[in-house]
Amino acid sequence: MIRFNNDYSQSAHPAVLRALALTAGESFPGYGLDPWCQKAAGLIRTRLDRPDAQVHFVVGGTQANYIAVAACLRPYQSVICADSGHIHVHETGAVEHGGHKIQALPAENGKLAAGQIAAVAEEYRASPIPEHITEPKLAYISFPTEYGTVYTKAELAAIRAVCDEYGLYLFVDGARMGYGLAASDVTLADMARYADIFTIGGTKCGTLFGEAVIIANTALQPHFRSFIKQNGAMLAKGWLLGVQFAALFETGLYFDICRQAVEQAMVLRAAFAARGVPAFIDSPTNQQFVVLTRAQADKLAEKYVYEPEQTLADGRLCARFCTAWYTDPVDVAALAEDIQSL
Amino acid sequence: MIRFNNDYSQSAHPAVLRALALTAGESFPGYGLDPWCQKAAGLIRTRLDRPDAQVHFVVGGTQANYIAVAACLRPYQSVICADSGHIHVHETGAVEHGGHKIQALPAENGKLAAGQIAAVAEEYRASPIPEHITEPKLAYISFPTEYGTVYTKAELAAIRAVCDEYGLYLFVDGARMGYGLAASDVTLADMARYADIFTIGGTKCGTLFGEAVIIANTALQPHFRSFIKQNGAMLAKGWLLGVQFAALFETGLYFDICRQAVEQAMVLRAAFAARGVPAFIDSPTNQQFVVLTRAQADKLAEKYVYEPEQTLADGRLCARFCTAWYTDPVDVAALAEDIQSL
Amino acid sequence: MIRFNNDYSQSAHPAVLRALALTAGESFPGYGLDPWCQKAAGLIRTRLDRPDAQVHFVVGGTQANYIAVAACLRPYQSVICADSGHIHVHETGAVEHGGHKIQALPAENGKLAAGQIAAVAEEYRASPIPEHITEPKLAYISFPTEYGTVYTKAELAAIRAVCDEYGLYLFVDGARMGYGLAASDVTLADMARYADIFTIGGTKCGTLFGEAVIIANTALQPHFRSFIKQNGAMLAKGWLLGVQFAALFETGLYFDICRQAVEQAMVLRAAFAARGVPAFIDSPTNQQFVVLTRAQADKLAEKYVYEPEQTLADGRLCARFCTAWYTDPVDVAALAEDIQSL
Amino acid sequence: MIRFNNDYSQSAHPAVLRALALTAGESFPGYGLDPWCQKAAGLIRTRLDRPDAQVHFVVGGTQANYIAVAACLRPYQSVICADSGHIHVHETGAVEHGGHKIQALPAENGKLAAGQIAAVAEEYRASPIPEHITEPKLAYISFPTEYGTVYTKAELAAIRAVCDEYGLYLFVDGARMGYGLAASDVTLADMARYADIFTIGGTKCGTLFGEAVIIANTALQPHFRSFIKQNGAMLAKGWLLGVQFAALFETGLYFDICRQAVEQAMVLRAAFAARGVPAFIDSPTNQQFVVLTRAQADKLAEKYVYEPEQTLADGRLCARFCTAWYTDPVDVAALAEDIQSL
Repeated sequence: MIRFNNDYSQSAHPAVLRALALTAGESFPGYGLDPWCQKAAGLIRTRLDRPDAQVHFVVGGTQANYIAVAACLRPYQSVICADSGHIHVHETGAVEHGGHKIQALPAENGKLAAGQIAAVAEEYRASPIPEHITEPKLAYISFPTEYGTVYTKAELAAIRAVCDEYGLYLFVDGARMGYGLAASDVTLADMARYADIFTIGGTKCGTLFGEAVIIANTALQPHFRSFIKQNGAMLAKGWLLGVQFAALFETGLYFDICRQAVEQAMVLRAAFAARGVPAFIDSPTNQQFVVLTRAQADKLAEKYVYEPEQTLADGRLCARFCTAWYTDPVDVAALAEDIQSL
Repeated sequence: MIRFNNDYSQSAHPAVLRALALTAGESFPGYGLDPWCQKAAGLIRTRLDRPDAQVHFVVGGTQANYIAVAACLRPYQSVICADSGHIHVHETGAVEHGGHKIQALPAENGKLAAGQIAAVAEEYRASPIPEHITEPKLAYISFPTEYGTVYTKAELAAIRAVCDEYGLYLFVDGARMGYGLAASDVTLADMARYADIFTIGGTKCGTLFGEAVIIANTALQPHFRSFIKQNGAMLAKGWLLGVQFAALFETGLYFDICRQAVEQAMVLRAAFAARGVPAFIDSPTNQQFVVLTRAQADKLAEKYVYEPEQTLADGRLCARFCTAWYTDPVDVAALAEDIQSL
Repeated sequence: MIRFNNDYSQSAHPAVLRALALTAGESFPGYGLDPWCQKAAGLIRTRLDRPDAQVHFVVGGTQANYIAVAACLRPYQSVICADSGHIHVHETGAVEHGGHKIQALPAENGKLAAGQIAAVAEEYRASPIPEHITEPKLAYISFPTEYGTVYTKAELAAIRAVCDEYGLYLFVDGARMGYGLAASDVTLADMARYADIFTIGGTKCGTLFGEAVIIANTALQPHFRSFIKQNGAMLAKGWLLGVQFAALFETGLYFDICRQAVEQAMVLRAAFAARGVPAFIDSPTNQQFVVLTRAQADKLAEKYVYEPEQTLADGRLCARFCTAWYTDPVDVAALAEDIQSL
Repeated sequence: MIRFNNDYSQSAHPAVLRALALTAGESFPGYGLDPWCQKAAGLIRTRLDRPDAQVHFVVGGTQANYIAVAACLRPYQSVICADSGHIHVHETGAVEHGGHKIQALPAENGKLAAGQIAAVAEEYRASPIPEHITEPKLAYISFPTEYGTVYTKAELAAIRAVCDEYGLYLFVDGARMGYGLAASDVTLADMARYADIFTIGGTKCGTLFGEAVIIANTALQPHFRSFIKQNGAMLAKGWLLGVQFAALFETGLYFDICRQAVEQAMVLRAAFAARGVPAFIDSPTNQQFVVLTRAQADKLAEKYVYEPEQTLADGRLCARFCTAWYTDPVDVAALAEDIQSL
């Protein structure tokens, strides 16, 4: 079976594994206070062109998300999110467990529009007794989204303008940041300009595990390590995170391997389109969502593992095909050929 | 100005005030462990025909709601609620502050349908990796709803059946219970049959303050007083609650004064209908939601205080007119007449 | 039986009850946005000589305490408290339920010393990896303490100086404020100078219920009503609180009735001392803690209700005798006489 | 510099690294639902002789601790802990952040005595109004303790008996379990008999990271994965945890490497004793706490890194020297020699 079901089913890029192997037998200070984390943070800051940005490393995406939310909000404040947002639908209520309401808005292709955020913020501003509702103080978007779509620079700028207008923070969940950057006009430096806080995902983009949390807004920086520790996200052997991110950011490896994965996804997108298999949502990144007939789904399932997302009202299946940094072009070519003969 | 804006703008029914005055100068044990709370609880239990039900008294509705939710749920569990539900839109995220996600569903006239609850529960049951989402474990409904509508006995039975099928608890927020009972085929004894836990509101139904929390499901009874105390809802001079509820339930006063308020509301409903003022939502209880033209709204505002709810897309105003146990029929007659000449 | 067991076993001072009765039949805006709350707040502000202080009213002391703590702290911050502090030992973990650690320190007679607070703050400041421990950010003291003792102005000034030195807030729990003021050189205006936030208790000092929360530090004022509502402490008929506090603060009634209660307590103190019954702790306020032999305890229990606090290692009983605004001097004289003949 | 400052300053045992390297390029299901986690869980269950025990793997110790606490407690319940317990002093209030009070008790050498636990439980049982305090429902101990001491089988049996008597759960934090087992008469199977839930630490005992959470009490097993996910402790590439624990438990490697580290620590203990350097606490495990004069401390600091714990009142330094699975006997011999010539 050839796996296209997700982008976290293999360990790490060989360069990352090599770097990790080289540190065996060496001793380091714990809790992320080591030279490797410093180095990796520096490399990322350089990409951002923001020497005053804080860079932290945590193990997983759910942690990164709810810690970022916690650091941005007071107890009576809430976070605005697309109804397909990861924090809303795939994290077992971690944000609410932390005490904060999520205001989920219906989202076109997984994306929030600046106007939607403004409407919620305006409703609060206009409320005669605002103390009866939560104050929307943070907008959460993912880049790319859970449906593989991306925001353009213009869209981010518009969201930023709304946040400035209403005093909101913007948090960008970049669990698949590398794949998003490969498919848009947005750079990491742009991200640091538009977002107050954002993540650069490692788990799905070349590392064994690990997410970098970038705090661009200096007002949110103090005591962030306290949030990390309190929420169980401070790795004792923190250098394991630094080593991996340094391996990916020393050169442009992070960007290269993600771009290659997106190119492979485009091969699949073209193949599906050529065969007349409709896209469920048109995605320019490494996740492709298509609508298969039952027969097509069964046929492909003989050789390939994909992720069934939902059964549509007419019985057809919405399925996700993912490429990743470890996807073999030979496998993609095989799948593309099999798609043609569906 | 004559006030129809809400049902909590005057102190308490004279019988309640008299009962309170009679206890001045007497001493009682604190924290609800007094003869008056015992007496009131007994009177309510008699109405329920459930000698094993627990009856607690707390000061306010928000407290009652989030404590009930807390007592029903483990941290990974969530509560299903209409998108107009009080816990979702008017309590500053108190339920989420307590750690629980609210799954808000689009609601016809403020009411949840049994099928909607079943669909959410079924989605969890069918999930291959349920640990990534919260477990819906509690259904929250209000009786009457925030829009004044009520569930029929048949509807409650259907919801109960779904809860039994999926192992959910049912919590009924009865902040306006008296008005709901006056407008439906449901009795308090029915409520104790269908709900695991529910409230009987005093604040809007004749007391200065206070809500009775009824725990019909014995599995939810242990340690409920710990929840009350931890959440700041245990009144030091608890007998003040017992005295008030005893005054209302000793005779049928609670039911009588609410029924009279609903009768007055029906006079208004008829007047609006006769004049051709459309109902925003057709309500059989003490809250009437109507759609006024700007001119009508301004005209009525000269003599009456009502609650503006929202401005519709066409510029008209959705307004709430409330009667209450203290509403003077003379005022209602005057308003009805003024409605005719709008 | 004559009750000396606590100071919250009777309803309210006649002047308070009269004021409440006068508002029956009148209509008011809800949620504390009424003229009575405004008036009461103004009267208190005048006593404080702080026109910029915020004054809020909530129903109960536990609420007031954990809301004040919540408003002062971020999630990684903790509150310093005497090990006999009410928030530590009598509120079912409400502060921890709200997410904050209490750092309980051994306390001489229920009082924290400035040096103890400084030591904890210094430990954090000196920590090489402070993110592994909570940041002590708030000092909680009660005035009078749970043992009836009071801080002098000089002691408060010393604590304030430590708080300034280390950037801590000071919160004074004044559930029995009136009795404390009657027994010390501290005034309400002093309190507003030394504390960032404090309460003026009504429940034990003349009202049916209700605590005034004074926010002297303007940095802590924004959105405090959101905290109140989220934590279920916003009374729908908020004017009931305003009316009561206005009745007590319009004249000096609050101070007078508490001073009289303290005078009665001093009669008891003298009687116990004259008879050779040792004080468990020497208290200048309305709570007297004495050590009774078993025979003495039994003898007094024939006519009086007191509060057994703990059985000492030698079998003797530490018992609390409380006076209150409603204590009858005749009862005190009788008890004093009976003490003599123990 | 030769490092004896802690037991988590190097990556992982070579056998663990080899096992990890072998899985590069292979694909696995995510979130711990992979064959490696199954295999490792099976190997551990065999050691426990408890086929019905659940075995989960999480990344870090703080996570493991607060999740275990969350799974054991309802909101009004608290955890009893030594005042030196890790959850009390080194986890930034994570347990309180999760809503639970810690009842910290003064502890002899880091250990709780059965009688101390009984006393707290008895106090709650005897309380006339228990709803004003938290219910102690869980006893937390660490094995070995933060001071390196261990409980004997008899001591564990006594604690278990108290827990049974009062209906408490027992949680054993085994972050250094391997080192504790090497220095006591307790086996893993004993642990599963005495504890309701416990951890087997990897981070300090041979893995890169990872703790196994063993749930021996079947009543605590349901939905534990929901707790893991909600608290951000579910590793996407969960097989990385399974591979490492399988490498250590396939043979007795886990036990062997920890025993060797303890043997090295005994060399140091003997050397300190021979030189007359007093133990701060006498520890039979891999952590040695000794009291150094300033001169001795400075002398040793020239060649060795140790952990300064606290400065004593007389100016001497309490210092920790740790061995670990990676400690070189040559380094230990050198240090032992240098100790002799202090």
